[in-house]
Amino acid sequence: MIEFPYLNEICMETGSKIVMLVVDGLGGLPDPTTGKSELETAHLPNLDKLAQISEAGVTTPVLPGITPGSGPGHMALFGYDPIKYLVGRGACESLGVDIQLGPNAVAARANFCTLDSEGKIIDRRASRIDSDKAIALVDMLGGIQGSANASVEVHHVQSYRFVLVLRGDDLGDSLADTDPQTLGDQPLQAVPKNPQDGYAFRTAQVVNAFVNQANELLANEDKANSLLLRGFSREPVDWPDFGKSYRLNPGAIAAYPMYRGLAKITGMTLLEAGDNFDTELQTLEDNYANHDYFFLHYKPADAAGEDGNFDLKVKRLEELDSQIPRILDLNPDVLVVSGDHSSPSIMASHSWHPVPLLIKSQLSMRLGVDRFTERACSLGSLGYRSAIDVMILALAHGGKLKKFGA
Amino acid sequence: MIEFPYLNEICMETGSKIVMLVVDGLGGLPDPTTGKSELETAHLPNLDKLAQISEAGVTTPVLPGITPGSGPGHMALFGYDPIKYLVGRGACESLGVDIQLGPNAVAARANFCTLDSEGKIIDRRASRIDSDKAIALVDMLGGIQGSANASVEVHHVQSYRFVLVLRGDDLGDSLADTDPQTLGDQPLQAVPKNPQDGYAFRTAQVVNAFVNQANELLANEDKANSLLLRGFSREPVDWPDFGKSYRLNPGAIAAYPMYRGLAKITGMTLLEAGDNFDTELQTLEDNYANHDYFFLHYKPADAAGEDGNFDLKVKRLEELDSQIPRILDLNPDVLVVSGDHSSPSIMASHSWHPVPLLIKSQLSMRLGVDRFTERACSLGSLGYRSAIDVMILALAHGGKLKKFGA
Repeated sequence: MIEFPYLNEICMETGSKIVMLVVDGLGGLPDPTTGKSELETAHLPNLDKLAQISEAGVTTPVLPGITPGSGPGHMALFGYDPIKYLVGRGACESLGVDIQLGPNAVAARANFCTLDSEGKIIDRRASRIDSDKAIALVDMLGGIQGSANASVEVHHVQSYRFVLVLRGDDLGDSLADTDPQTLGDQPLQAVPKNPQDGYAFRTAQVVNAFVNQANELLANEDKANSLLLRGFSREPVDWPDFGKSYRLNPGAIAAYPMYRGLAKITGMTLLEAGDNFDTELQTLEDNYANHDYFFLHYKPADAAGEDGNFDLKVKRLEELDSQIPRILDLNPDVLVVSGDHSSPSIMASHSWHPVPLLIKSQLSMRLGVDRFTERACSLGSLGYRSAIDVMILALAHGGKLKKFGA
Repeated sequence: MIEFPYLNEICMETGSKIVMLVVDGLGGLPDPTTGKSELETAHLPNLDKLAQISEAGVTTPVLPGITPGSGPGHMALFGYDPIKYLVGRGACESLGVDIQLGPNAVAARANFCTLDSEGKIIDRRASRIDSDKAIALVDMLGGIQGSANASVEVHHVQSYRFVLVLRGDDLGDSLADTDPQTLGDQPLQAVPKNPQDGYAFRTAQVVNAFVNQANELLANEDKANSLLLRGFSREPVDWPDFGKSYRLNPGAIAAYPMYRGLAKITGMTLLEAGDNFDTELQTLEDNYANHDYFFLHYKPADAAGEDGNFDLKVKRLEELDSQIPRILDLNPDVLVVSGDHSSPSIMASHSWHPVPLLIKSQLSMRLGVDRFTERACSLGSLGYRSAIDVMILALAHGGKLKKFGA
C-alpha cells in the first residue's frame, strides 16, 4: 500500500516492467440454471493457462460486503486506501477529458436524459444519443450564464455524457445527485447534503438555475429533453503521487474518460489510447519501451454485466482472452490481471463479491489453480486478500523492493 | 462493520429480511479417539444441506488466538469492534433482566456458592439451587444497607444467579472479581484493579461490607452459604445504535439474560422469547412480519461444550438441526448461521478456534462445501474472516447496501 511508511526507503528503480490489466467488473456469479459464473462459462484458454503458471487469489476491493464504484475499485488496486482516497465522478470524468479544474472548481457528471410529458424520467441515457448530436446540444447549453459569484461551463465527454463545471471562490461540493437513478421519478433538485452547509446551498442554487435554463433550451428535443447530474466533486489535492511513491514511471492506457481521470489523479502519464481495447494494446506495444508500469483498462466485461447480459459478458471475456497473447508477447516481468470489482450479470450491477487475481512472474509459488475463475482463484496461493496489497506484491514480483529492516 | 464511515450513505431500508442464528459455542475440536469434532460427529442433514447452497467460511471472533467471552463474540457478529466495545458481565445481565442502570450504577454478576468449613469453595454454583430457593435468599439479602454514599440492590436472574447493583455518584467499576473461578480457594476480597483508583477503592469497601453481611445471613444455608462476584461494570454509553446505524428494525430473540442484555445494549428491540429454543422459534414466527433483522440465539450447544460433554454437545447440535426447517419455512432473504465462539468439549471451555459460518441468499457464489463443519467451512467461498465482517455481508446479501463511491 502506498502509505507503508518505509516505502520510500525500500522502493528502487529497476529495468523490470509491470503490466497491470484491470478487467472492469471482472467477477460474476453463477447463472442459476447452469450453476456456472460468466468466467466459468467462458472458453478462456489463455487466461486459464496463465493462471496455471501464476500466483492466484481473489481480492476484496474495499471491505467485505461493500460494493465499490469504479473509483474505490481502482484506487485500491493502485495501493491507495479506497476509503481515505475517495474521489467523485464529476472530478474524475472532467480530468479524464483534460479539463483543468484546480482548487476553485466543482464538477458534476451529467447525462442527457428523456422525460415524459409529466416530467418523469423514461430513459436515463436519452437513447444513448451519438456524440455529434450531443456535442451540438452541449454547445447550445454553453451559452447559459452562471451567477455573479460562479461561472458555469459544460464539456462533452462521450455519447450522451458530459460534465458541468462551476468555478467560483465560495462553492461547495457536498451536493446530493439530481439523478434519482430510477425510472418513473422526476429529476431531483440539487440540494446540500448537510442543510447547514451554506457553500453547498449557494452552489445548489447556481446548479438549479442552470438546469432550469437547460430544460428550456432542450424542451423541444425528442430524446435529450433534460439532464441528470451526479458526483459533484472537486479535484483531490495532496494525494500521494503514484510514480514518485513507488519509484515508477507509470503509463496509463484507458479509453474511457472516468479511468483516464483516475489515473491522472494519481499522477500517471496518460497515453493516447484510442477508443477500444485493440487501440489500447497498440498503445501498449508502441510505448512499451517508455515506461516500467502500465495500467491497462478493459471495459467491455463490466458494461455487459451491468446490462445484465450474461452471454455478452461471456463473449467479452472471451474476446479479452484472445488478446492476452499480445500482452505476453511483450514478455513483461510482472503481469497482474484482476478487476476493480465484480459485476455479476444476474445482479445487473456492481457487487461486493471477491474478484479473481493473478500475478505472473518468475517468482511465483503457485498452487495448482487450473482456471481463471472466481472459485478456482479463491483456492490459489494468494487466497483472499485486500486489493490494496496488489501493488506491493506486483513491485515485489518485479524485484523492485529492497529488504525492510536489518 | 458498524464504524465504516460511509455506512449512513450506503445503507437503505428494504423489505428483505435477515435472520442471524447465533449458535453459542458452535465450533469444537476432534475427539482424540475418533478424530472427529462434535459437528463432524453429529447427524445434521438440514445444516449440511444448507451449507451446500450457501456461502461458507469460518470466523475469527476477536483476533487469532484470542478466546472471546460471550460479549466480544456477539458484539463482533453485530459488527462492533469487540476490543473497543467491551462490556462487563454485570451490566449485561442486569440489562437482560430489565434493570435500569444509568450513569451512576455499577453492577456485578453474582453466583450463590458453597463453602466448606474452612471457607473454601466446593461448588461455584451452590448445587444449582432452583429459582424459588434463590429468590427467597435474594429477598433476604435485599435487606442489607449500603453506605452513606452508595446504595446496594440485589436482583434475581435465574437459578443460582443474581446481580448486585451499587448506585452512587462516586463509584468506580474497575474492580477485580471476587470469584477465583477455581475450587478449593477462598472467595477473594473485592479490590481495585489499579491500587491508585480511589473510586474503585471506595466501591470495593462497599462491596466487601455487603459480602460480609451476606455471609452472616447465609451462614446457616447448607448449599448457598456464600456468593461470588464478577464482571463489575457500568452500562455503556454513546455506543452506536444497531438499528439506526444499519437502517434496520431489529428484533432480538434470546432466552438467556446475558444475551438479552447484549442485544439491549445495541438498541435492538427485545422480544419475549420464553425459556428455550422452541419458544424462541415461536417468537420468531409470531413476530416475523414486524422486523427486518432477527438475532436468534441458541444456547444449549455451548452449555454442553463448557461442561466437557462431547456426546451431549453432539445431541444439542442435532436438536438444533431438527429445528432448522422452521426457520427455512419463513423463507428469509438472508439466513446467517454462525457462533459467537468455539466451545470444544475436550477443552470444557470457550476457545479461540475459528467458528463455522454460512450465509444463504440468492447472491451466493458457493464453493462446493458439503457439510456444516469446521474443516468443510474453512474451504468455503468466505474463507477465513473476521466476525466483524459478517453483518455487512448479511446486509449486502439482503440488497440493503448501495454502491460506495462513483
